[in-house]
Amino acid sequence: MSVLIKGGRIVTASDDYVADIFIEKERISLIGSNLKVAADRVIDARGKYVLPGAIDPHTHIEFPFGATTTCDTWTSATTAAAAGGTTTVVDFCVQTPGKSLGAALDSWHKKMDKNKPVIDVGFHMAITDLKKPETMKELAAIDEAGITSYKLFMAYKGAVMVDDTTLFKVMRQAKEKGAVVMVHAENGDAIDVLVKDAQAKKHTLPKYHASTRPVETEGEATNRAIQLSRIAGSTLYVVHVSCKQSIDPIAHARENDWDIHGETCPQYLFFDESYLDKPNFEGAKWIYTPPPRPKEHQDHLWHALNKDVLSVISTDHCPFNWKGQKTLGRKDFAMIPNGGVGIEDRVRLIHHYGVTKGRISLNRMVELLSTGPAKYFGLYPRKGTISIGADADIVIFDPKKKWTISKKTSHCLADHNLYEGRKVTGTPVVTLVRGKVVVEDNKLVVTPGHGQYIKRANYGSKLLAKGK
Amino acid sequence: MSVLIKGGRIVTASDDYVADIFIEKERISLIGSNLKVAADRVIDARGKYVLPGAIDPHTHIEFPFGATTTCDTWTSATTAAAAGGTTTVVDFCVQTPGKSLGAALDSWHKKMDKNKPVIDVGFHMAITDLKKPETMKELAAIDEAGITSYKLFMAYKGAVMVDDTTLFKVMRQAKEKGAVVMVHAENGDAIDVLVKDAQAKKHTLPKYHASTRPVETEGEATNRAIQLSRIAGSTLYVVHVSCKQSIDPIAHARENDWDIHGETCPQYLFFDESYLDKPNFEGAKWIYTPPPRPKEHQDHLWHALNKDVLSVISTDHCPFNWKGQKTLGRKDFAMIPNGGVGIEDRVRLIHHYGVTKGRISLNRMVELLSTGPAKYFGLYPRKGTISIGADADIVIFDPKKKWTISKKTSHCLADHNLYEGRKVTGTPVVTLVRGKVVVEDNKLVVTPGHGQYIKRANYGSKLLAKGK
Amino acid sequence: MSVLIKGGRIVTASDDYVADIFIEKERISLIGSNLKVAADRVIDARGKYVLPGAIDPHTHIEFPFGATTTCDTWTSATTAAAAGGTTTVVDFCVQTPGKSLGAALDSWHKKMDKNKPVIDVGFHMAITDLKKPETMKELAAIDEAGITSYKLFMAYKGAVMVDDTTLFKVMRQAKEKGAVVMVHAENGDAIDVLVKDAQAKKHTLPKYHASTRPVETEGEATNRAIQLSRIAGSTLYVVHVSCKQSIDPIAHARENDWDIHGETCPQYLFFDESYLDKPNFEGAKWIYTPPPRPKEHQDHLWHALNKDVLSVISTDHCPFNWKGQKTLGRKDFAMIPNGGVGIEDRVRLIHHYGVTKGRISLNRMVELLSTGPAKYFGLYPRKGTISIGADADIVIFDPKKKWTISKKTSHCLADHNLYEGRKVTGTPVVTLVRGKVVVEDNKLVVTPGHGQYIKRANYGSKLLAKGK
Amino acid sequence: MSVLIKGGRIVTASDDYVADIFIEKERISLIGSNLKVAADRVIDARGKYVLPGAIDPHTHIEFPFGATTTCDTWTSATTAAAAGGTTTVVDFCVQTPGKSLGAALDSWHKKMDKNKPVIDVGFHMAITDLKKPETMKELAAIDEAGITSYKLFMAYKGAVMVDDTTLFKVMRQAKEKGAVVMVHAENGDAIDVLVKDAQAKKHTLPKYHASTRPVETEGEATNRAIQLSRIAGSTLYVVHVSCKQSIDPIAHARENDWDIHGETCPQYLFFDESYLDKPNFEGAKWIYTPPPRPKEHQDHLWHALNKDVLSVISTDHCPFNWKGQKTLGRKDFAMIPNGGVGIEDRVRLIHHYGVTKGRISLNRMVELLSTGPAKYFGLYPRKGTISIGADADIVIFDPKKKWTISKKTSHCLADHNLYEGRKVTGTPVVTLVRGKVVVEDNKLVVTPGHGQYIKRANYGSKLLAKGK
Repeated sequence: MSVLIKGGRIVTASDDYVADIFIEKERISLIGSNLKVAADRVIDARGKYVLPGAIDPHTHIEFPFGATTTCDTWTSATTAAAAGGTTTVVDFCVQTPGKSLGAALDSWHKKMDKNKPVIDVGFHMAITDLKKPETMKELAAIDEAGITSYKLFMAYKGAVMVDDTTLFKVMRQAKEKGAVVMVHAENGDAIDVLVKDAQAKKHTLPKYHASTRPVETEGEATNRAIQLSRIAGSTLYVVHVSCKQSIDPIAHARENDWDIHGETCPQYLFFDESYLDKPNFEGAKWIYTPPPRPKEHQDHLWHALNKDVLSVISTDHCPFNWKGQKTLGRKDFAMIPNGGVGIEDRVRLIHHYGVTKGRISLNRMVELLSTGPAKYFGLYPRKGTISIGADADIVIFDPKKKWTISKKTSHCLADHNLYEGRKVTGTPVVTLVRGKVVVEDNKLVVTPGHGQYIKRANYGSKLLAKGK
Repeated sequence: MSVLIKGGRIVTASDDYVADIFIEKERISLIGSNLKVAADRVIDARGKYVLPGAIDPHTHIEFPFGATTTCDTWTSATTAAAAGGTTTVVDFCVQTPGKSLGAALDSWHKKMDKNKPVIDVGFHMAITDLKKPETMKELAAIDEAGITSYKLFMAYKGAVMVDDTTLFKVMRQAKEKGAVVMVHAENGDAIDVLVKDAQAKKHTLPKYHASTRPVETEGEATNRAIQLSRIAGSTLYVVHVSCKQSIDPIAHARENDWDIHGETCPQYLFFDESYLDKPNFEGAKWIYTPPPRPKEHQDHLWHALNKDVLSVISTDHCPFNWKGQKTLGRKDFAMIPNGGVGIEDRVRLIHHYGVTKGRISLNRMVELLSTGPAKYFGLYPRKGTISIGADADIVIFDPKKKWTISKKTSHCLADHNLYEGRKVTGTPVVTLVRGKVVVEDNKLVVTPGHGQYIKRANYGSKLLAKGK
Repeated sequence: MSVLIKGGRIVTASDDYVADIFIEKERISLIGSNLKVAADRVIDARGKYVLPGAIDPHTHIEFPFGATTTCDTWTSATTAAAAGGTTTVVDFCVQTPGKSLGAALDSWHKKMDKNKPVIDVGFHMAITDLKKPETMKELAAIDEAGITSYKLFMAYKGAVMVDDTTLFKVMRQAKEKGAVVMVHAENGDAIDVLVKDAQAKKHTLPKYHASTRPVETEGEATNRAIQLSRIAGSTLYVVHVSCKQSIDPIAHARENDWDIHGETCPQYLFFDESYLDKPNFEGAKWIYTPPPRPKEHQDHLWHALNKDVLSVISTDHCPFNWKGQKTLGRKDFAMIPNGGVGIEDRVRLIHHYGVTKGRISLNRMVELLSTGPAKYFGLYPRKGTISIGADADIVIFDPKKKWTISKKTSHCLADHNLYEGRKVTGTPVVTLVRGKVVVEDNKLVVTPGHGQYIKRANYGSKLLAKGK
Repeated sequence: MSVLIKGGRIVTASDDYVADIFIEKERISLIGSNLKVAADRVIDARGKYVLPGAIDPHTHIEFPFGATTTCDTWTSATTAAAAGGTTTVVDFCVQTPGKSLGAALDSWHKKMDKNKPVIDVGFHMAITDLKKPETMKELAAIDEAGITSYKLFMAYKGAVMVDDTTLFKVMRQAKEKGAVVMVHAENGDAIDVLVKDAQAKKHTLPKYHASTRPVETEGEATNRAIQLSRIAGSTLYVVHVSCKQSIDPIAHARENDWDIHGETCPQYLFFDESYLDKPNFEGAKWIYTPPPRPKEHQDHLWHALNKDVLSVISTDHCPFNWKGQKTLGRKDFAMIPNGGVGIEDRVRLIHHYGVTKGRISLNRMVELLSTGPAKYFGLYPRKGTISIGADADIVIFDPKKKWTISKKTSHCLADHNLYEGRKVTGTPVVTLVRGKVVVEDNKLVVTPGHGQYIKRANYGSKLLAKGK
């Protein structure tokens, strides 16, 4: 099956021009002006942007959290992703403490075999427990499964939190393999003291989720991970950076050319701590971790995205229904499952609030949403750009079309949308994955299972170097 | 005439892939894998880089300096440029104090009409004297001549130096027109005191050129220009940044998102002040301004290039023969014409010492030498990248070919080459300007006059915004 | 005549203790607990602070400005100073362009011979014109007159402004003599363009005084003076720092251990630009230079005072009557004499708003008002502290006494007080100069002429070194 | 008993003048010129400095470390201190894990009752274990014992190291009481991994002590303690800062006016990591923690001392004999007791290498060695300066006397001196504690027991505020 995309404005991380694109055998084979070539399908993209499909390197799909599980299936989550212009996700396989990494991997593949994805998928591996010596051996071989990034939680004491010994040992292993270490950076010990103190004082409302996780807990842990990385000689990628206190040590590291990187997520750019105060327990929808911050941090985050202090915008999509899931914590904020909805609206939000408001250029948007994640996580040049030979993961984006974000039009199964009612200008209209249209006019037009598991290469093995 | 470039590794500011390029009517019309299309000429680029032609936005060709004139003609200089992979230059028209801007522009066009160029050419306008009120009116209309950048000298007291009043007035005018203000940033007053003091002490050797222009004179003037720009609200581009003292205020400005930019030149990356000490007056070859600096500044410059504190590498090509020109100052360093040879070897040098030594990525090299200058000086997207519809200004660069830099193989008319004898890996093998091969295997293969004068648009009028 | 001060709380730049002080022959000869010694006068200082007399190193007394002269006499100004706790002033002798330094010095001494001072006095020399070669020779010998600090104006174009050549030459001379160079740092060229532009637009109100002297003009000139000092190797002291743009380069310099220092004045700590908008031309009272700034700069100034980025608080006392002097500029802000009233209330203001509000410690207040200026300007250890052998320049300060600042109770001859109506806690009750009570309960109790001209030593000749 | 000190040059943190001092009833009662007063003893101090006695707030006397105990007795250590110009020490009481704080306090008092001190003594309390709930209650009441500072070890895993939960809880308690939290800042987890790795690789030599404790482990822990302090709202004092990585976060904190402070010790100013390589296991003498660092850190430390980023120089005196103690680790560097000799030579070393070499002023020396520690640890104004009413803890220091540091002339019981053979200019000649000469010409002239236990007030309770 071949596709011809006519007359669109092609935008990559550095270029911006009008041309036609011809796709054969899942890949881009020709770019030219006024291509005269027969195709099974012709898409008229005049007046529209033709972008490389967005990549979301931070999702939690069918993910068990405490006594519950995130509410999307692999099919629903990836449909939502595709509808929003995302063509690949990299999800976190999480080791159950006491169990093997292999068991986690099997479990993740089984879920995806059952509720099949419509876009491509990779996995990171989250390590929670190194007590068994064979776990480190498993880790050493996990690149064979196409996993080249390891995640560790510095918070969630008593659950998935690791101590510095485990963190540091994994970093040393990552150095050996050229893998990327990803950290959830918060000081779990201090948070645990603050949470227990709040509970003792009968501080039960959602807002105490924020006050018991002050910005210093994140800034501290970020710096700790950076320094331990420096000793280990490993690559570090700090997930969901939410505040200046965490931005500053990353900026310092990058100014010194250390191998340190970071991402943020839309929920930190668009919501502040006041959302937790919404009445009737609605604030619980904004219980995610790190929590929403004071408003001034939003400007710091945009600045960091602009100056390449932060290099990726992911979603940390981790959806829970308000009813039945978020409400588990009606009597104690600490019992509310942590996580928010986000996979579907990332591209629209960043285009509207970032590009049309003049905060970032269109090229930088492509870099933050697609090219950057592809390069960091071993998907480039197969994914992450529009060039000859690349997978035809393409989004036709109408920059003038109005769109109202809403649960009603969403493919995510959660019973609410954090951005409900926001009106944006610009939305994806056609999404192709490996040359096949998967979503068109917000409707799934492909059979689940089109999405494939992608084995990833090492970070920057060939392409990344100084200067980018 | 059509050209097909087969199988090269196409490198842009952000991408890197293998494909064929088809050129028709001076422009790139098709990029694809295994293109099957008839062409007047087929170039086999397998194993080679296919790069957008480099742009040199800082040259002084047939330029009168004191009692003498730079020794290249427009034909020789542009042939040297093309041989080295440069496909466009933007040269400085300089107002003669007391005369009109129009007279300068006429004079520049006349020279170029006589000794015709082989590559494309644009002009900046250097303002030296605003005494006549009509000069400001001329400046206001000069965009009609395709000139959208104004240059001012803060040094060369008694010659082309302007005072802060003139500088500030021109900045205010630039703000009105959206033009770029370029400054040669050195404190001419302090230098004048130091030079006269050196002369009084009979300090005649070339090395006193450096000691009478300490780094603080450059750092001071750079900061002065930045602050005056802030008041005027104009765009500033600091030419030939040579030292940390000048880098620091630019870095501070850019961190604050001010509209401040800078370039450096190869002579500051590769030579230090010790070159002025070469015996038998040979040091005079390295008399350019700012002077060669202590060696430690080279690392600061590379770091600034990497962090986008400096965004362009130009040449400040301003060639004088050693014999008969440089030797005018045998008895007084202040009589040595200021300027060095450089237009021909920029791409080779940056590739060898930048990319192969791991200081910058290949993508960043393209950005610094081509995409960046094209965007700053109103040439993008017509020039500065490889994409459909762009001028086919292309360099086929063999990254493995050894090359020894030498006067013998150079097309520049100067009697020496500053880089004489340096062995590099990687050199241009074919250079095309608007689809026509102009140099092949270091030989000019086109009739002078192929090069055209290009009217330039305003800086960033459409394409540049935050994030790039 | 001997004096015994009983039971006061003696506060120096680092100490704070209760003791008695005995004064003989103008100097402090004994400090002890419960001194039993006969004295001509006994002062009960229980419950009060006993402070070293404040030193004001920045005044313009009987100073011609344009067509008018500051409205205090040497007697009135020094009485006001003494009433406010100041026991020494260092005033600016200003060379008339075209005339000799000696003429200026004579003129200053003559004025002081006529209207004799009640406290001690030193002079700085302001150089405005180096055209005559003998001026530099005069400067080289001026330490013989006890003048060890040179002032230059980088603003007031067409009047006392010097160009960078003059500034730099004076710096080189200062280096030879170990003198301190003081600069009024504003870019006079840019200000001149802005003022003329405002005048052309009929912008006549006082507020245009501020808008035509933007903070960048001060920041720029400050940095310029710093860099030129670095080249010359001289000591720099930046007067009346008013904004962050000027603080930042001083902070950078001091962090690098450069010999760079700065002062601010109360009017920058307590007034913002909104004062210029007072109706009925009252805003003209706040026409001083640099102008009052946006309010946010006040916090930056306090921070700089705390971190020893700024090391002195002086007054720049330069009083003009509103009626008849300030009103000269009713039709054009540029015709309003520049200068404000301040010599009398400095200590009260800094104590109330600095110490009692917790912005600075009491020790730091003493350092900023007395010990610091004494050390910088060659008066220490004779003045600037309370220790055995020092001049008995002492202020008995009642920290609990309420005081309302007002023209009515002031000794300054100006027809207004900028701080009119402000209520402060803490005020001087007795002021001694060389062991003699000069003001008591706000009344002059000494015959004018008690004040002496003091020949000053060089900066830090013996006492200042790193670490302070 | 009364003492009259004649004609010395009295130097405090800010002053410097010549006068006589009269001492009665242990305190300074009179300072004057040419005092004519009868005294039991007259000391001729002409040509000498008269300094406030140095205070050493960081010692480990009769301290059990692993299987051994530091080799000084309270008598020998305080004699050495006095001989070197130190008149007060504040030693660390250390809780035995599992035992009460009271038990530790008793134990410390008993040791001191047995081997009585010759100078005054205070205690800090080191908390190692909060498992028993009553420990926190004990801590809450410990100010009644005159203890107002709590110490925690972030390293020494498996021994005295605390986790972040304990550290944070103690900080919250300190906030309640206004106490100072002192931390030994190193990441014990990472060090433990590195040490075990070194042991596994049979890396047994002393130098591995340094390589297993890289600078990042200290920098990380310092920042962690700072951030946790910020959350707790407590005062932090970082002990034995040794490197830039630790200086930087302290500098950042202080620039932001956070309540964060730090000290360094002479061993970090004078020794680098190469000392560990001394042959025949002699390097073991330099096994202290943090370890000696690369030489470049010494300049950073001096700079930090000058800029008040570091505010105190203590000794961390923790002496072990080489023979029999240090040699316990001949086969494994990790078995070498950690600690070095230092109490005796601090003042001489800082005077010689700091003051006479121009690195700090004499006033700043007094501030770093005496006034600063007195203010931080609740001893000021009773101790830490020379003023009326203060304890007559005074050192007569001969700035011209040559001294060779050596075990032979030392009063410390250790079998070596780290500074053996260093020749310095300037040495204490008489040391008085509360008005009594305790050491004269390097000989103890008082009966042990003259030293008293001092109950300390809270940090800054009355005297410290911004600006100092």
